[in-house]
Formats: sequence, structure tokens, C-alpha cells
Amino acid sequence: MNAFQQLVEHSKKVSNFQHLSSIIGWDQAAVMPSGGAEARSNAMAELDVHIHSLMTQPHLADLFDQAQELPLSTEEQAVLREMKRTWQQDNLLPEALVKAQSLAGSKCEHAWRSQRKNNDWAGFEKNWAEVVKLSQEEAQIRADANGTSPYDAMLELYEPGTSSASLDALFAEVKTWLPSLIDNAIEKQKSRSILLPNSHYPAEKQKALGLEVMKLLQFDFEHGRLDESTHPFCGGVPSDVRITTRYNESEFVQSLMGIVHETGHARYEQGLPQAFAGTPAGEARSMGIHESQSLFFEMQLGRSEAFVEHLSRLASNHFQGAEFAKDNLSKIYTHVEKGFIRVDADELTYPAHVILRYEIERDLMNGAIKHTDVPELWHEKMQAYLGLSTAGNFTNGCMQDIHWTDGSFGYFPSYTLGAMYAAQFMAAMRKTVDVDSVVRSGDLTPIFHWLSSNIWSKGSLLTTDELVKAATGETLNSEHFKRHLVSRYLG
Amino acid sequence: MNAFQQLVEHSKKVSNFQHLSSIIGWDQAAVMPSGGAEARSNAMAELDVHIHSLMTQPHLADLFDQAQELPLSTEEQAVLREMKRTWQQDNLLPEALVKAQSLAGSKCEHAWRSQRKNNDWAGFEKNWAEVVKLSQEEAQIRADANGTSPYDAMLELYEPGTSSASLDALFAEVKTWLPSLIDNAIEKQKSRSILLPNSHYPAEKQKALGLEVMKLLQFDFEHGRLDESTHPFCGGVPSDVRITTRYNESEFVQSLMGIVHETGHARYEQGLPQAFAGTPAGEARSMGIHESQSLFFEMQLGRSEAFVEHLSRLASNHFQGAEFAKDNLSKIYTHVEKGFIRVDADELTYPAHVILRYEIERDLMNGAIKHTDVPELWHEKMQAYLGLSTAGNFTNGCMQDIHWTDGSFGYFPSYTLGAMYAAQFMAAMRKTVDVDSVVRSGDLTPIFHWLSSNIWSKGSLLTTDELVKAATGETLNSEHFKRHLVSRYLG
Repeated sequence: MNAFQQLVEHSKKVSNFQHLSSIIGWDQAAVMPSGGAEARSNAMAELDVHIHSLMTQPHLADLFDQAQELPLSTEEQAVLREMKRTWQQDNLLPEALVKAQSLAGSKCEHAWRSQRKNNDWAGFEKNWAEVVKLSQEEAQIRADANGTSPYDAMLELYEPGTSSASLDALFAEVKTWLPSLIDNAIEKQKSRSILLPNSHYPAEKQKALGLEVMKLLQFDFEHGRLDESTHPFCGGVPSDVRITTRYNESEFVQSLMGIVHETGHARYEQGLPQAFAGTPAGEARSMGIHESQSLFFEMQLGRSEAFVEHLSRLASNHFQGAEFAKDNLSKIYTHVEKGFIRVDADELTYPAHVILRYEIERDLMNGAIKHTDVPELWHEKMQAYLGLSTAGNFTNGCMQDIHWTDGSFGYFPSYTLGAMYAAQFMAAMRKTVDVDSVVRSGDLTPIFHWLSSNIWSKGSLLTTDELVKAATGETLNSEHFKRHLVSRYLG
Repeated sequence: MNAFQQLVEHSKKVSNFQHLSSIIGWDQAAVMPSGGAEARSNAMAELDVHIHSLMTQPHLADLFDQAQELPLSTEEQAVLREMKRTWQQDNLLPEALVKAQSLAGSKCEHAWRSQRKNNDWAGFEKNWAEVVKLSQEEAQIRADANGTSPYDAMLELYEPGTSSASLDALFAEVKTWLPSLIDNAIEKQKSRSILLPNSHYPAEKQKALGLEVMKLLQFDFEHGRLDESTHPFCGGVPSDVRITTRYNESEFVQSLMGIVHETGHARYEQGLPQAFAGTPAGEARSMGIHESQSLFFEMQLGRSEAFVEHLSRLASNHFQGAEFAKDNLSKIYTHVEKGFIRVDADELTYPAHVILRYEIERDLMNGAIKHTDVPELWHEKMQAYLGLSTAGNFTNGCMQDIHWTDGSFGYFPSYTLGAMYAAQFMAAMRKTVDVDSVVRSGDLTPIFHWLSSNIWSKGSLLTTDELVKAATGETLNSEHFKRHLVSRYLG
């Protein structure tokens, strides 16, 4: 075996242990009884240590040097590029820092669960100071290695190839039209009346409906499942994708569209190139591209009138009630409202929440602001972007998200990048696919065929820019997103 | 850390990976979609290799030598004894043999699934020849190390401390009274009429009933779950025990008592000594003792009149129908009938199936017979013990069990040892616990308290003989089993 082949074998070995980690993680979230937690976390920690020791084996450096000299095909070069990228990311940080981060992150996150309820910024700030400090250390180490700013080095973990310079430009442009678009949409919706959920919606029926929707979306049940967990997610492995949802029996809105969203993630995973399974080239391209698939399903497809008709029809197999009428469902799923909470935000106000977080975490990682500045900045930006005050309201202000509690800085932009890519993919798809007729026909195959050929089957063989350009003829262009929003909310 | 402490740390590390293996194994049997099988088996194989490499690390031999010289407490000595026993078992076989066995076993078992259906002895025999040959090699290697006969060396894997000399004596005695006891019981039951299941019994209701029965049996739902699988089992880890059952909607008899049986296994696991978790001393004593707990629950407790009253009462929460009347349920659960199939056998005829298998596998491992002799011997022994002919009937004869297809020779005696231990434990318990009144009261705590103090909490700190003697005042005595059977079936 030459060096390249040895690296591939090693990658597959690591991937086998990551497979176990994914399934065990699903188990923990979806089925494990509470008393199993302590022994389980010991077992998981042991597995983490083992995976880390495999990924940081000293002989890998030599293999990468040797592989670089080999005559490799284009695809092999892509595999090597991605293996090297993940290897470098995994080997950059000193073990002491990783341990300190894990400890500080657990402590901060755990305390946050009650501190958030109690609006206890003072308590939170004490733990968070250490988390921010350690993340800044991490960002600086990565920045030194990459030759970028600290924040850009963190971005690279989630969105390889994206810089804050490009995000600054992108979001600055969005800020020129988003606030007025939100106001105009709210004004336009003022007169319409919506029938909100007003009955009891048994979890079992919601599940049965969800399964039908997944079928319509051609989720492959031979290679995946639907289960329940407190925080919905898409986990497992490409050959066995585990999505979860949460049923609230006093409404159906969240779980129904939540399933559409997770099915988008799932189909991407199920559609990844099997020939590259076990190597990073066979994995999803980035968090933003992953989110582009869930948001393609949820926003582009799921909230379209043609798709809502299916939802209404399928719902009538399980529920009676005028709230499931297609026009009403459509209103529910396009309702715009300024609110404090990102995870409850609608499609239109969501980018405002993301831009706010992006600006703050960028400045925090680059040392332009202190962590104690965050509540005030949050308040100012909420005022500016959504006209809401979070003065003194930490619970629904800067303490609302779990992301920063464990030091995950750099992830938030992916949500809005995903929404933009989704709109761009839809615009490109419409050039060759009559999307609305296809959806109305009930056989959505041409849509999935397009996504599969252009996105899913590419894994990480192309860079994000290459992937998007090959699929749509241009790199990221927020104009498609704007056009989509204007058409849906002011059209 | 001294050598003993290092061995304990190592044992806990191995145990953490075995934890993952158990949960992943449960996942595979209970929830994994079929398309996930291939990638999963690669991941599991990787984990197996890793666990094996941990258990066979060369430095362990030195640690065992050093630990032997340390001044250890009685409990520490027990921990060392059990760690050394499992280590020796894991290190005896050459890797080539283990691989050959795994390959031959998988091949034979896989083909057996269709060969059994087709009564294809000729086809099966070709694969099985290799499995038997390799198991004989294994047995010889173990025998040379232990200074015992080959079969005794295999027995040691499942029932440490048991010899075929003692089993020969035990089963010879059983054979003096079992056949006539079976005949007399059948004669006695001739006149009674039973109302068999005759309706549709929805899986959901069976599950709800099963959960109530588990509650009565004080299954700890904080540390375990009930799920479904094709072949019911008790898996997981002591802090998170996963039992499964299978629902056949045209009857309820199997799943209901199956849940009682698996709950017995589960409570043993849940009751193991936490202070020794992660070492073999904190594990179940043997297969026979494990089976003694499931059979205590199923046979001693579950089929007693007092317990059947609870089953009847709880069933009425979910089902109507005279078949659930307590007298009828009692008849169903004590019905005696000579049949071909071990897994369908009743309490009374079951030992005949086991003794037959024991005698054959003993002679096979010791080289006294050839594998091609098995069908004829099976037929002769079925005639002698149960009066049934299996001439030409391989499907319901020697090809009915999965055990031998992958070379698991030495396991069958555990079933009947378990039944005997269960009867002996019940006899001892009755000296201090008024079992029937306790069961009737609905609070079975005193029964579980006895089992916990005498069996569960002991793990493998005592040898089997020590454990049984401490609990009952004597080592294994089949008289209790006989008395129980006579009292239940001729009383």
C-alpha cells in the first residue's frame, strides 16, 4: 500500500469508530434511560480518547508528506486534500487546551440550563469568561497556522473557504433591504386571519403524518429511522440516518415542518457518495451546505403552496379541523413576526438573528470586544434590526442559545448561508425542472434527482465554491435569496 | 498504581468498549434498518479487533505475575481471580484459529437459516464439519491449558467450576425419574380443558400489559427499557439494561411470559455490585446462574398460582376474554406436552432436550463420536427420553438450534442448571420468606431483597459453589428441582 492508500485505510478505521460514536450519540438522545447516563459518559469519553489518539498518530505526518509526492487522480487529490484538512484541524490544539475547553464548556453549559431560566447573567458571565478565553486561545492557534484572523480560523471549521470579509459584505448588503422587507411583510399580513392550532393533536397521529410526509420526500427507510428526542436532530451514519422530532400535543406546526427540515438533512446524508465512504471526501461539504439541504426542504419546498397542498391532504388522513385547510396552513407557515428567539423565528426575520450573532462572535474572537460587552451589544442590535429591546432580558437575549456556552464560535453564519444557498439552488433548478408542477404531481423525483446529481453525490470532492458554481453557474449570490423572500412575502 | 490497580484500570477500559458493543448490539437487533447492516458490521468488526487487542496486550502477563505477589484483601483476590480467568481464556487461542472459527461459524450459520427450512442435512453437514473440527481444536488447546477433558474445557467458558463428571451424575439421576414424571403429568392433565388464545391481541396492548408486569417485578425503568426484536434477549449494560420481546398478535402467551423471563435476567444485571463495575468480579457469575434468575422469575414465580392471579388481573386492564381467567391462564402455563422443539418445550420436558444435547456435544468435543453420527444419536435419544422419532427429520431434529452452527459447544447444560438452581433458591428462600403471601400482597420486595442479597449483589466475587452454598446452605442439589416439578405437576 502506498502512503495515500494507507491514509485512506486509516481514515476508514477512524470512520468506523465515528460510526459507533454517532449511533451511541443517537441512543443517548433518543432512547437511553436517565440512569444510564453516568456509565455511558465514561464509555463515550473512552471512545473519544481512542478516536483522538487515532487521529493524532505521529506517523500520519510522514504519510501526508509522502502522499503529496504521488501521482494522484483528481478525485484522489480531493480525498487527500480533505483528509489533510481534517487531520490538520485535529492536530493543531495542545491536548491541555482541548481538555480545559471540554471542562469549561461542560461546566458553563450545565449551569446555563438553570441560569438562563433565572435570567442570571452575572452567574453565567463568570463561567463564560473562561469559555471565551479558551476559544480565543484556540482561534489564535488556528489563526497562526492558517494565516488568517482568529475568527476566520474558527469559521474554517464549519465553512471551509469562507472569510469574514465575504460575510461582512454579504450581510451588509442584506441589512440594506431586510429591515424594510420585514416591515412591509408584516404590514401586508396585518389584515389576514389565521386559524391557529386549537385542539389536541395526539403524538401518534402526528408521527403517522410525519412518516407519510417523509415518504413523499422519498426518505429511504431502509437506511434510516424517525424517532423522538428533546432537541430534534439528524444523526447516525449515511447508511443508517437517524432523524428525530419532538411532539407537542397542543400543536402540530413545529413537528410537521421539523420533520421536513430533518428529512432534508437526512437525504443529503443518504445521498453522499458511497465510493468515498469512510473518508472526509465522502462527507457533507460544510455546515452551510448541510443547512442548505434542510432549508431547501423546509423553506423552498416545504412552505411552497404546492407542497402545503400535500401537507393539507395528508393531514386530513389523521386530523379534522379547518386549521389544516391548505390556505390556512400556508398562512401559518409564512407568518412573519418580530420576536426575541432565534429558534422560533420565521424565515424572514431569521437572518437578522444570525447577523446579530455573527457580528458579536466575530468581534469577540478577534478581541475587538469583551465578553461583558455582549448584553449591551445584543440589545443595540436587536433594536436596530428588529426594533426589540433586550435590556436586562438575558433569558431572551444573549443567553438564549446553547452554541456559545461550550465555545462553538463560528457556526451561526451557516444558518443564513444555508438559506441563501437553498434559494440559489432552487433558482438554478427551475431552469431545468418545472418545480411547481413536479410537486403538484406528487412524484418529486426530478427535484431529488437534481439535488442528488448536483449536491449530494459530490460529498466533499469539490470545494464549496466549486460545488455551488458547478450546480448554479455562479458562486454564492444573495440576490436569489432576496428575490425568493420578496416573491413569497410581498408577491 | 500497583500492578493490581493497573489491571483494574485496564479492565475498566475494556469494559467501556464492551459497553459500546452491547448498546450497538442492541441497536442492531432492535432498531437498525436493514440497509445499515453492512457499514455496521464493518464498524463492529473494528471494535471487536480493538477490544481483542486490548485484552491481549503483552504487558498484562507481567502485571498478573506482579499482582499475584501483592497483599490483597479477600475481595481484591476475587477480582484478580476473575480478571485472570477471563484474560487466560482470551489469550489461549491463536489468532488464526479465532479468525477461522469466525469465518466458518458465520458461513455455517448463514447457510443453516435456509438449510434448516429445507431439511438439508447433507448441505449443512458439509459446513458444520469445519465448525466442529475447529471447535475440537479450540477445546483441545483449552484442555491442555486446564488439564481437563476437551469438553470440560468448553464448559468452563460458560460454567466455571462445572465438570462433565458432575453433570453426568446429575443428569443420570434426572433420567431415572423424568420420563415417568412426564408421562404421569400428561396422564393427569388429560381430562382438563384449556381455552387457548382465540382472538386478536394487538401488540400495543400486549406491550402495555408487559410494562405493568415489569413494574410488578420492580424492573428499574431508570436503568433499562423494553423493546422488540425477532429473537428476544436481555442486553445492554447493568446501568442500562435492554430487554426485548416479540409480539405475535394471534396469541399473548409467549410474549407475556417471555417478558417475565427477560425481566429476571434484567434484574440480575441491574442488581450487580456497582463497586465492582468494569471488572469481571462485577459481572454475572455464570450462564447457569443467569438462567437461574430468569427461570426463577419465569418458572418459580411466574407460573405460580399466586403470580398467575396478578397476570390475570393485569390482563383484564387490556383484554376481555375467558382465556385470561386465572385458572385458565394457570393451565396454559403448566401444560405439558412432548414435542420436537426445545424452545417451545414446557418446564417439564425441557430437561430432556437439554440432556440429549449435552450427551451429544460432550461426546463430539471429546472425539467419542463423529459429527455425522449426530442425526442418528438425536433420533435414538428423542425416542428414549420423549418417545418421538426424528428419523429423517433434521429440521425438527439436530438442525433446530442455532447454538452449534457457530461452534458454541458447552452452553446447553446452563439451561437446566439454571432451572435447578432456581428451584434450590426458591426452597431456601421459603425458609425465611412466605413467598405465596408476599406474591399475593402485590409487593414482592422481600423476594427481590433475598435475591439481591444472596445472588445479584455478589456478582462473581464468589465461585458458583461458594455462592450457592452461601445462599442455600448446600451446593447444587437437584432434589429441589425434582420436588418442585412433582409438586407442580403431580401435586
